[in-house]
Amino acid sequence: MAKVKGLRCRECGREYPAEPIHVCEFCFGPLEVEYDYDLIRNTVSREKIERGPKSLWRYVDLLPVEEPKVGLTAGFTPLRKAENLGKVLGLKELYIKDDSVNHPTLSFKDRVVSVALSKAVEFGFDTAACASTGNLANSVAAHSAQAGLNCYVFIPANLETQKIYGSLVYSPTVVAVEGNYDDVNRLCSEIANELNWAFVNINIRPYYAEGSKTLAFEVAEQLGWRAPDAVVAPAASGSLVTKIWKGFKELRMVGLIDGKLPRVYGAQAEGCSPIAQAWKEGRDYIKPVKPNTIAKSIAIGNPADGIYALAVTRESGGEWETATDEEIIEGIKLLAETEGIFTETAGGTTVAVLKKLAQRGVFRPDEVVVVYITGNGYKTMEVLEGHLKDVVRIKPTLADFRDKILVRVP
Amino acid sequence: MAKVKGLRCRECGREYPAEPIHVCEFCFGPLEVEYDYDLIRNTVSREKIERGPKSLWRYVDLLPVEEPKVGLTAGFTPLRKAENLGKVLGLKELYIKDDSVNHPTLSFKDRVVSVALSKAVEFGFDTAACASTGNLANSVAAHSAQAGLNCYVFIPANLETQKIYGSLVYSPTVVAVEGNYDDVNRLCSEIANELNWAFVNINIRPYYAEGSKTLAFEVAEQLGWRAPDAVVAPAASGSLVTKIWKGFKELRMVGLIDGKLPRVYGAQAEGCSPIAQAWKEGRDYIKPVKPNTIAKSIAIGNPADGIYALAVTRESGGEWETATDEEIIEGIKLLAETEGIFTETAGGTTVAVLKKLAQRGVFRPDEVVVVYITGNGYKTMEVLEGHLKDVVRIKPTLADFRDKILVRVP
Ligand SMILES: Cc1ncc(COP(=O)(O)O)c(C=O)c1O
Ligand SMILES: Cc1ncc(COP(=O)(O)O)c(C=O)c1O
Ligand SMILES: [Zn+2]
Ligand SMILES: [Zn+2]
Repeated sequence: MAKVKGLRCRECGREYPAEPIHVCEFCFGPLEVEYDYDLIRNTVSREKIERGPKSLWRYVDLLPVEEPKVGLTAGFTPLRKAENLGKVLGLKELYIKDDSVNHPTLSFKDRVVSVALSKAVEFGFDTAACASTGNLANSVAAHSAQAGLNCYVFIPANLETQKIYGSLVYSPTVVAVEGNYDDVNRLCSEIANELNWAFVNINIRPYYAEGSKTLAFEVAEQLGWRAPDAVVAPAASGSLVTKIWKGFKELRMVGLIDGKLPRVYGAQAEGCSPIAQAWKEGRDYIKPVKPNTIAKSIAIGNPADGIYALAVTRESGGEWETATDEEIIEGIKLLAETEGIFTETAGGTTVAVLKKLAQRGVFRPDEVVVVYITGNGYKTMEVLEGHLKDVVRIKPTLADFRDKILVRVP
Repeated sequence: MAKVKGLRCRECGREYPAEPIHVCEFCFGPLEVEYDYDLIRNTVSREKIERGPKSLWRYVDLLPVEEPKVGLTAGFTPLRKAENLGKVLGLKELYIKDDSVNHPTLSFKDRVVSVALSKAVEFGFDTAACASTGNLANSVAAHSAQAGLNCYVFIPANLETQKIYGSLVYSPTVVAVEGNYDDVNRLCSEIANELNWAFVNINIRPYYAEGSKTLAFEVAEQLGWRAPDAVVAPAASGSLVTKIWKGFKELRMVGLIDGKLPRVYGAQAEGCSPIAQAWKEGRDYIKPVKPNTIAKSIAIGNPADGIYALAVTRESGGEWETATDEEIIEGIKLLAETEGIFTETAGGTTVAVLKKLAQRGVFRPDEVVVVYITGNGYKTMEVLEGHLKDVVRIKPTLADFRDKILVRVP
């Protein structure tokens, strides 16, 4: 596979073959896929991509997979101009990248999983697994069903019912670990050392993470082959933010876009904001925290890619900001009421942070700003209890309609 | 608007201008949009459509809207080859048209609503409304938020919590009517006579219903511009089935496909199957029933388009079949476990019916069969309670993992 040169340690630069490994043997740094960009530059073109499938696989030339095996319909979600929300925030060119309708499991995780499991099948694994805050488990379970892989998903025991059902329906083994995500992750790392399973975000992580680059690729294409001025994205492990940035850089490197790259802004829930805290305190290292937030899907207290995500904001000229649980719910409602899009707590966090940043004046009114909505509201529906208007109950008569509804119509 | 000639009564053929009306003044028959197909034949082409937006609006030439105003990202959902499910059912060319990820509210209703509300805005209405079994309410609420319309959605009071929240989040007035859908619908018809509201499925119904044709258009395009041999679709009011058929007929009429049109098979829940019952008893009229099924989204006891849906199966060479509540849940699980797609009760009904039809041998093994999955499983999650495997709870230790999980691994 000529386009992929191998894996390379992010810390010491040592090179490894493209195998199911993820840690440098010498310095314990994370491994990342290395491409032959000269070769890619000569094989990709806007036209070739536009003729490709209506999925993230139109960018296969920039992904570490020879041939897609599973998740053939993932990605290529809508980029929608947000006129109403833009007006509220004083932004003339605000766009929503809407992965709340990603295929098939309604979050951006369908991107990373379709890449990871295509690779796992290529490697010959027969069992897929993951440590998850919920969305990843849903996606690994669904794609394993598609691919006929055995499947074990590991989640914190206190996850939302919706996220649990959204895995169970595909009939994997769902392992509810007593502890938070960081406990789950630690356990899974130990298991991954013992068993020959494809843990998508552990031993397959170098490949898995590359899937998030497609959120940059698609936005650039959907904007007419240019980068926005700024993007806002949520962070748990920090991988997504890191890879969005890598995606835009690669597009420029292979000549698909030119000009300036976007400033990248990161969003975290105040109750679990180790990266944002490091940013605000001017640190370049992460102090792990104990998560305490309704935004469970992004509640990672010890983020694997935290320092790289920090570096991205520094390099790109972005920032980090946080949202309280109350602001997260307001963010969910604001997006629904202005744009008709129902997102989960992670999306509520991102919208709340977008709003704070806009109010602080970090965007010029005419800048092109893209906000990444990474998951669907149905998956965390329970957080809305007590926060919505009441249903009005009536008898099926015109009289009761007049008494209970019409009297209130302005 | 030259492509639309006006409205025409399906019963007596009387013609009306294209206004917000839906019933013939003379015979009370339903009105339907009439097109100038000669004109359309000269303006559409496969190439023009393929260059169009990645949404149902690529077929605007065959829709009764001058310019889309709302719902710009609806439609153009994946058509996926279902290898695994196909194997189970003995079908080599089975495809799933997956509206469980339709934008923005995860059901095929985003198609009809984006057309209906674009038309309502064109007509100058300031208030949108509907009588709904749940999905329509979600979609009308979301699109009203987008379009800045006031919004009232009317639902049976006993609907699933998920469907209620999935409307409330957009902040419409949700009116829970004590009664079943047919009571809701009767009340709404009375209200529509009194108020100048755009009830998408009452006074805007002729335009609304046309949106479902795009489920035929997209399938034909995604199959490489040809009709499948057979399609299976669920029915509540019967509009969807009727319009899928109309869609395929129109494609042939304007020269976008040729050859045979598909046999259309209709699916209903046994607990509410007035159309299927009429079919099985050889009647050409509908006896209204009282709904009693978990498939609430398709629980319409007195289907407005029932007789036309019956006629479609007769004309196309299809049939009607039903599924019990138990079979519906099995259908949901079968689709999830084989294809990694999580559908709601309506989709479970459709898969269960597909299975029965396949077992009865109504399809040749090499026929191209398309099954329409019209809604997302998160919206009726509660029906799965007690029907899924248990979560396995463990402590975050390798020892507990070995004891509770590894011992069970085959
Ligand atoms: C909806 C959603 N958004 C964002 C994230 C953050 O992803 P990352 O771990 O790559 O930072 C997650 C992670 O689970 C998620 O589920
Ligand atoms: C998910 C789903 N599928 C199918 C239908 C049937 O639609 P129709 O009333 O056009 O027959 C409905 C109607 O509400 C629905 O919600
Ligand atoms: Zn190293
Ligand atoms: Zn008439």
